Amino acid sequence: MFGKVVIFGVGLIGGSFALALKAAGQAAEIVGFGRRLGSLTQALELGILDRAGFNVGQEVSNADLVLIATPVGKTPEIMARIAPCLGEQTVVTDAGSTKEDVVAAARAHFGERIGQFVPAHPIAGAENSGALAARADLYRDRQVVLTPLAENSVQTVARVRAAWQCCGGRIRELAPDEHDRIFAAVSHLPHVLSFALVHELTRRDNRDLLFAFAASGFRDFTRIAASHPEMWRDICLANRSALLEELDRYRAQLDELRDVLQRGDGGSLEAIFEIARTARREWANQ
Amino acid sequence: MFGKVVIFGVGLIGGSFALALKAAGQAAEIVGFGRRLGSLTQALELGILDRAGFNVGQEVSNADLVLIATPVGKTPEIMARIAPCLGEQTVVTDAGSTKEDVVAAARAHFGERIGQFVPAHPIAGAENSGALAARADLYRDRQVVLTPLAENSVQTVARVRAAWQCCGGRIRELAPDEHDRIFAAVSHLPHVLSFALVHELTRRDNRDLLFAFAASGFRDFTRIAASHPEMWRDICLANRSALLEELDRYRAQLDELRDVLQRGDGGSLEAIFEIARTARREWANQ
Repeated sequence: MFGKVVIFGVGLIGGSFALALKAAGQAAEIVGFGRRLGSLTQALELGILDRAGFNVGQEVSNADLVLIATPVGKTPEIMARIAPCLGEQTVVTDAGSTKEDVVAAARAHFGERIGQFVPAHPIAGAENSGALAARADLYRDRQVVLTPLAENSVQTVARVRAAWQCCGGRIRELAPDEHDRIFAAVSHLPHVLSFALVHELTRRDNRDLLFAFAASGFRDFTRIAASHPEMWRDICLANRSALLEELDRYRAQLDELRDVLQRGDGGSLEAIFEIARTARREWANQ
Repeated sequence: MFGKVVIFGVGLIGGSFALALKAAGQAAEIVGFGRRLGSLTQALELGILDRAGFNVGQEVSNADLVLIATPVGKTPEIMARIAPCLGEQTVVTDAGSTKEDVVAAARAHFGERIGQFVPAHPIAGAENSGALAARADLYRDRQVVLTPLAENSVQTVARVRAAWQCCGGRIRELAPDEHDRIFAAVSHLPHVLSFALVHELTRRDNRDLLFAFAASGFRDFTRIAASHPEMWRDICLANRSALLEELDRYRAQLDELRDVLQRGDGGSLEAIFEIARTARREWANQ
C-alpha cells in the first residue's frame, strides 16, 4: 500500500498506472503533473487523479512513489525538477521505452540519491494515447521490465516491483543495455518500418488509389504507424545506436531478399517465408 | 443462379466462395478439385462441396461457372487442363492475387475462348489457409477487383460480377497492370517486409530472448508473416517487376530515415512519423 503517489505525465501510461493502483486499493492519494492543462482537467474528470499538482517540491517531498510517464525526451527535465526535493522514503520509477538513456539521465540528476530510482518499462501500449485511452487493466498480464541499478537496495526494488505487480504486470529483469538492444529489434525497428511504409505511400501521386485498395494485411502491418510521433521520435533518438544496428541488419536482409527475388529463386523465397511463418506461429502459440 | 459450379482449389478462398454461393442459394451443385485427397475429404465433410470431381473434362464441359482458386503458380496448369473442354456457356474466373501473369497464362491457354475468362481478385485473406478456415462471410463487404479483358462480352462480365456479388463482394474494376502495381505497394511489399523481419530475427543466437519480449506491436506487424509460404512465393514471382520497384522505393525511404536518425535529426523524424500517423488514421477512419 502506498500513501501519496505522484505521476508525471497523465496520458495512457501514467493514467493507466493510476487507475490500476486505485482499482487495487493500493494508493491513498494520486497527484498528477502534466504539460497541458487540458490533459490534467481530463484526468481529474475521468477520476484518474485525486488532485492536480502545482508545486513539485512540495508534492514530491512526502510522496511514497513517483512515476515518470512522459515521452522519454522529457524524462531528464522531470528528474532535474524532482531530484532536489525527493523525500528520503520516496521511490521513483519510470515507464520509458528505452533504459540506457534514462539511467544516464538519472545518474546525472539524482546524484547520490540514484539508489531511489528503479527504471521500468511496462510492455503495454496502444496506438491511442492520452488520458482518455487510459484503463485500469492496461498492464494486466503484460510484462514489466525492471532494469535495477547496483545502487538500488533490495527493499527499494521490492517496492517498485510491488507497485507494478499491483497493476497486474508480470515482472522481468534485464540490464539496461540488454533491454535496449532487445527492444530495438522487436519493437523500435518494427515501428520505424511501419512508419516508413505509410510515409512512402503518402508521397505518391496516386496515394488515394493505393489507400483505397489497402486491406487487412496493410491494416495490421501499419497499426503501429498510428503511434505517437513525439514519443517515437524520442525513443528512436534515445536508442539510436542499437536502432541503427537493427536497421542495418534489416537492410541487409532486404538486400538478400531482393537478390533472391531478382533472380527468380522461388525455392529460396519459399524457404525464407516458411522459416518466418513457423517462427511466427510458434511465437503466437507460446 | 448458377447450375454447376466447379472449383479448383478448395482451401480458404475456394471453400469460402463455395460456402457463400450456397448460403446465397445461388449454386445448384458445387464440385471441387484439389491436389490433396485430404483437403477434398475435409471439404466434403464440412459441406463445402457436393462432390469431389475426378474427370476434369466431364465436369467442366457442362459447368456454368469455374473458379480457379489455387496458388497463382498452379493457375497455368489448371487452365491448360480445362481449356480444351470448356462448355460454350461456361464462364471462368479466378482469385489470384496477381493479374498480369494470370491474364498472360489465360491468353496462352484459352486461345480463342479467352473471352470466357474474367480475372478476379477478392481482397480477402487471412493468415489461416485451408478448407477448415473457409467461411461463408469471408467476402462480405470486401472489395473484389475484376480486371476484365477486351475480349469479354458484357454478359460474361456481368455473370462473374454477379457471382462475386452473391458472395457479398463489392466489385471494383482495374486494368491488370494497374492492379498489380497497386497491390505490389499495399499488399505484396508489406508481406515481404513482415516475412523479412521475422526471418531476420530467427537467425540470431538470442532469438528466444527476443521473441520472449515481443509484444502487441510486433504481433500486428508480423501477423502477415504467418501467411502461406507457397502462395506468397508465387505472388512474389508473378509480380516480380512491380515488387522489385516497390522494394527499391522502400529501401530508398529506409536509407533516408537511417540518415535522419544517424544525424539525430529529431525534427525530421517526428515530421515523418506525423505524416505517416495522419495518413494511417485518415485511412482507418474512411
